[in-house]
Amino acid sequence: MTEHSLWRFSRALHRAIDERQYADLEALIDDDVDWAIYGPIDMFPFFGARRGKAAVLDVIRRIADNVRVHRVNRESVLLGVDSAASMIRYSLTALDSNKPISLRLAHFAQFKAGRLSNIRVLVDTFDLVEQALGRPIHLPKLAS
Amino acid sequence: MTEHSLWRFSRALHRAIDERQYADLEALIDDDVDWAIYGPIDMFPFFGARRGKAAVLDVIRRIADNVRVHRVNRESVLLGVDSAASMIRYSLTALDSNKPISLRLAHFAQFKAGRLSNIRVLVDTFDLVEQALGRPIHLPKLAS
Repeated sequence: MTEHSLWRFSRALHRAIDERQYADLEALIDDDVDWAIYGPIDMFPFFGARRGKAAVLDVIRRIADNVRVHRVNRESVLLGVDSAASMIRYSLTALDSNKPISLRLAHFAQFKAGRLSNIRVLVDTFDLVEQALGRPIHLPKLAS
Repeated sequence: MTEHSLWRFSRALHRAIDERQYADLEALIDDDVDWAIYGPIDMFPFFGARRGKAAVLDVIRRIADNVRVHRVNRESVLLGVDSAASMIRYSLTALDSNKPISLRLAHFAQFKAGRLSNIRVLVDTFDLVEQALGRPIHLPKLAS
């Protein structure tokens, strides 16, 4: 049984972010990849939509310029033949401030011939914004 | 081929929220269900963790007290034998203000004998908070 594309891609992605080794990752991204991370792009310019391998490698380089990955805790995972979804809790370090960031995200990924062809990432953005600001945002209680 | 538990559960959930008919839903929740919606519980008291069928039905009633579901757009879905993950874009109406709310979430669910036994829900919380406040939260640009 061959290894699922998700595991190869995840290893290559973390290697790219932590060691700035992009060769493995480059081989695992479809030329016409469709990529989106939902979240406030004004604060985090590496959020948002990207199309094509060059744009996706560029955004991964920008992520690598801003954080290091400490720990990856995959809380849920579901694998299809050429698809995968997981919920992951990341422990990161922000490189500029050296501060720890804890981040939960969910992704849905599709692979074509072993290469990432589509990914949608949802982030617990409010929690992330508060950590990045370094202070809580005061919220009214809205619902009963 | 029998229908996947996800579809039965989703129909019953939306019926509960929109029509306050809880009987179908009650039969599809495991007595010892483990439930969590990640997000700012100070602003939205129906976020957070719940354990057991009574607590989960109570929180669904509180959600039904606050919103109606207009449209459900399931953008991604992955089904396992007794599990399911999907990313959904909801068009909701806040009942107190009559304002539309657009909400993207991802869930990972497990079923036992056709009943929901575990669910984790991640919401694009920052976007939701801004909509609930009715104004944007000013954010500094943090990353390069």
